[in-house]
Amino acid sequence: MLGVLGGMGPMATVDFMAKVVRNTPAACDQDHVPMVVCSASNIPDRNAALRGEGADPLPAMRDALRRLEAAGATCIAIPCNTAHMWHCALQYETPLLILHIVDAVICELTARKGDCIGVLGTTSTVEGRLYQERLSCKGLSCRVPDAASQDAVMQAIRLVKAGQIAEAANILQVQAEALIDAGCSQVVMACTEIPVALASVEETLRTKLVDATEALARACVRACKTPAQGLACAA
Amino acid sequence: MLGVLGGMGPMATVDFMAKVVRNTPAACDQDHVPMVVCSASNIPDRNAALRGEGADPLPAMRDALRRLEAAGATCIAIPCNTAHMWHCALQYETPLLILHIVDAVICELTARKGDCIGVLGTTSTVEGRLYQERLSCKGLSCRVPDAASQDAVMQAIRLVKAGQIAEAANILQVQAEALIDAGCSQVVMACTEIPVALASVEETLRTKLVDATEALARACVRACKTPAQGLACAA
Repeated sequence: MLGVLGGMGPMATVDFMAKVVRNTPAACDQDHVPMVVCSASNIPDRNAALRGEGADPLPAMRDALRRLEAAGATCIAIPCNTAHMWHCALQYETPLLILHIVDAVICELTARKGDCIGVLGTTSTVEGRLYQERLSCKGLSCRVPDAASQDAVMQAIRLVKAGQIAEAANILQVQAEALIDAGCSQVVMACTEIPVALASVEETLRTKLVDATEALARACVRACKTPAQGLACAA
Repeated sequence: MLGVLGGMGPMATVDFMAKVVRNTPAACDQDHVPMVVCSASNIPDRNAALRGEGADPLPAMRDALRRLEAAGATCIAIPCNTAHMWHCALQYETPLLILHIVDAVICELTARKGDCIGVLGTTSTVEGRLYQERLSCKGLSCRVPDAASQDAVMQAIRLVKAGQIAEAANILQVQAEALIDAGCSQVVMACTEIPVALASVEETLRTKLVDATEALARACVRACKTPAQGLACAA
């Protein structure tokens, strides 16, 4: 049973679950992946904590993990990129495999060695080099927005959390296009709020965007339908 | 923490969670209702069981309830109308309040005493008189599709579970309009798959449809934000 450590944010968790359902070949309820989901919206702000300005979210994340274990989860996914800054700390707490969202994204990239990949994420994800480190191991470089643009991205992410989707979409589309204009072959939507806002973006831009939420959902379906495969990419 | 006994079907559970999130006044993650959700897609088919043709779903529903209790749920919602045929049996199993979807719908009806309400649901929901009994206590009568139309409704519900949304929408729109033409002042979408299909129906029909999923979601937000109120309607 897939365990989802969610609530960061709540609508991103819903978006993730919808993507698990849509990526499962199914003709009836019983063909779907059983899930237990903790939408722990009480987890303190991850970005504030990483700036040294807010409560440590690890205790609340650990509490959600315990609830998922108690409910019988057999592997864990976290539909929040920033929360992966605590991936090691959480994995240390549990014998269950916690799938890593960046590894799931790497499975979906069509870029070739030497390509530059754009990363649209929270300031913590970008400054914490969550994507840069793992992508450089694959011979890929990363480009992130400059400081002023990054502030705009953070503002858009907060708008999604407050339900102001259209306003967020306008900001994020401009920032995604700027990264492509700067030479990125693909742009990762590396915060789970971003695909919620850019769900209906036009086709030309769409084909260059990589949805980290969708990538994680597909990795989960693979892991649950063929457990021996773990997080390996589909052949 | 709201406990959701879900997976019946999986996309209906996702739709329910989205409606809880959208109906919560929130400016940031921490304003949202914490939820633990068991998407127990392994629960045997409720309609087959009620026809005497399939396994009893109660043991699997009880197992999901136990998982929610273990994860720390403090009240329970079941985003599946047909599953409410086992509401009493499940409520008997737990000290936690299980909100009733029909009571939530009654809170949202604008119909007056003597009005006729249309009910679009599974054959089990309709034949089991899930809505008829509770609505008659409020002085409201019910109309359900005739046998051939009811078969079409069931077929549409199965199409949603298999991801064929557009095909399902066409069938359900015809059936909803037929109930309105027959004199119903409102039509309850009394199966959680139905609003998934009719999400983008045109405004004239939309205003006469009552979404049981949305009604349950709003009842949950009220119950979680003002726990003393329980399932009472908003003033």
